[in-house]
Amino acid sequence: MLRAVEIAANGPARGVNPQVGCVILAADGSILAEGWHRGAGTPHAEVDALSKLAAGEANGATAVVTLEPCNHTGLTGPCSEALIAAGVSRVVYGVSDPGDHSSGGAARLREAGVDVAGGVLLAETTARLGDWLPAARLKRPVVTVKWASSLDGRAAAADGTSQWITGPEARADVHARRAASDAIGVGTGTVLADDPSLSARFADGGLYETQPIPVVFGARETPTDAAIRRGTHEPIFATGGDLAAELRALHARGIRSLFIEGGPTLASAFIAAGLADEVLVYLAPAILGGPRTAIGDVGITTIDDALRLSIESVETLGDDLLVVATLKKKP
Amino acid sequence: MLRAVEIAANGPARGVNPQVGCVILAADGSILAEGWHRGAGTPHAEVDALSKLAAGEANGATAVVTLEPCNHTGLTGPCSEALIAAGVSRVVYGVSDPGDHSSGGAARLREAGVDVAGGVLLAETTARLGDWLPAARLKRPVVTVKWASSLDGRAAAADGTSQWITGPEARADVHARRAASDAIGVGTGTVLADDPSLSARFADGGLYETQPIPVVFGARETPTDAAIRRGTHEPIFATGGDLAAELRALHARGIRSLFIEGGPTLASAFIAAGLADEVLVYLAPAILGGPRTAIGDVGITTIDDALRLSIESVETLGDDLLVVATLKKKP
Repeated sequence: MLRAVEIAANGPARGVNPQVGCVILAADGSILAEGWHRGAGTPHAEVDALSKLAAGEANGATAVVTLEPCNHTGLTGPCSEALIAAGVSRVVYGVSDPGDHSSGGAARLREAGVDVAGGVLLAETTARLGDWLPAARLKRPVVTVKWASSLDGRAAAADGTSQWITGPEARADVHARRAASDAIGVGTGTVLADDPSLSARFADGGLYETQPIPVVFGARETPTDAAIRRGTHEPIFATGGDLAAELRALHARGIRSLFIEGGPTLASAFIAAGLADEVLVYLAPAILGGPRTAIGDVGITTIDDALRLSIESVETLGDDLLVVATLKKKP
Repeated sequence: MLRAVEIAANGPARGVNPQVGCVILAADGSILAEGWHRGAGTPHAEVDALSKLAAGEANGATAVVTLEPCNHTGLTGPCSEALIAAGVSRVVYGVSDPGDHSSGGAARLREAGVDVAGGVLLAETTARLGDWLPAARLKRPVVTVKWASSLDGRAAAADGTSQWITGPEARADVHARRAASDAIGVGTGTVLADDPSLSARFADGGLYETQPIPVVFGARETPTDAAIRRGTHEPIFATGGDLAAELRALHARGIRSLFIEGGPTLASAFIAAGLADEVLVYLAPAILGGPRTAIGDVGITTIDDALRLSIESVETLGDDLLVVATLKKKP
């Protein structure tokens, strides 16, 4: 299974489909074939591995695969059927398929008399899937809302100035997290006010190899000469009207993780809609006071309705603090 | 000197004067006498020690004292003169006297031919003085401003409800810090809205042995049946008009440390006036949004005027975080 997890990484880390690896073993434990998934529309890992064997060669073999074989005809046929047809007698997999349509592969295999074991090396196989798995379960990208504020929760001074509340270490951390996200969300207010490029850059200005896709939320038009239009990826435009639907649409395009950078209106809208999974709060050792809070109204009127979080970590970044917290589900 | 630091603790820990200890040594290093200060109006440690010796017995002796001997006739006479008159030939002290009137004892002793060494065991002698020393330097109590807020800086939900933003561990920490403070400051708004007792209590409701003196700031009247009037100490009332002058008056009454508990108006006023030395921010893992920020306007309009702090510690208290920070002096 560790070998299957390893070869899964040969596939693309971004996109609609996950990285999956498959190793086909003979009865004596020797490796007959290996396969991995190369992205949407190409064979799944199991079919890729089987394709390297002659007819009958997989008869009585064991297939070790990081994700439960699918039971669904999408752009490719169901892997469960391919394994049954190849005569595989045992299937060992890691993570159960979270899909409404694609799950049920294990049950189909058992029905066909195949010996099936799931949940093997669950931590390792889960880690390989990254954000694909929680996104598949949520049926939308995993949403991280980031804000930077003074200790008293202000994102800017009364006159709107905010550069730089936080220091270079905190900003470098933000850029690394941008690079690790599939997409980065920003409101039209921020686009019009700050004209950010939202690219992921090193301290020397050089670009990270992977760049997030910018997603601009809001009804207002983004100027044709906006910096956000001149990056690695064409921006995606969303009205910000039905955030849940817009997230589903982003997920359908293969976006698994969305990093909401602001401003306060957009961050508050995602929080208020219950669509924030994680918050990153960069706290600067400063007091600003005044009207420009990092988070605005989130629809809470009384203390019992406070959104409760679990603090995952607190880290010192230069003079600043980074608090990472996940939102608790409402009971 | 360690013995002098030890016996200093026999004196009262609160009041106008500090805890000071004095040991008088013979030429062979044996202890001739020990003394300590018992509070304003009673002999200083040096005079207390000398009083235990017969005339001439201190001739040629060494006086070891935790604080520089005073050079000032207040409620008692200057210790420098008493030491000179007793024939002491050497004086070793820890901390220099910070007073405008009382300092200069070391110079006076040297002038009289006494061998003088200061700054001995400075960490230990400074620690024994506690808040008395910084308060003496500031000529006002050391001010700690405390607030509890959600991660987004709100002290309450929109309807004003706030119990309990933070958990029992954070509240226990607040009570321990109340007990360690000479006085606790609250605005009339909080008195009228919440009727707090502001006593320092254990989780079981029992009172700490030492209780802070309540100081109510504001123009409005405190009701005769207010809980704050039924505690260990009579409250002190201040208008909140000229905070700097009111702090000097509190200092003159022997208050060395003032713990500002709120509400937002009072906390913001102390911060805006530059009269906060330390802030304690209890951050609950929650998001509230809305209008009730823990800190209001502090007179800052642009980012360059942000009040900068040094974070001294970040601690986990149950589910909450406690950030302790000191305010940097303006350049």
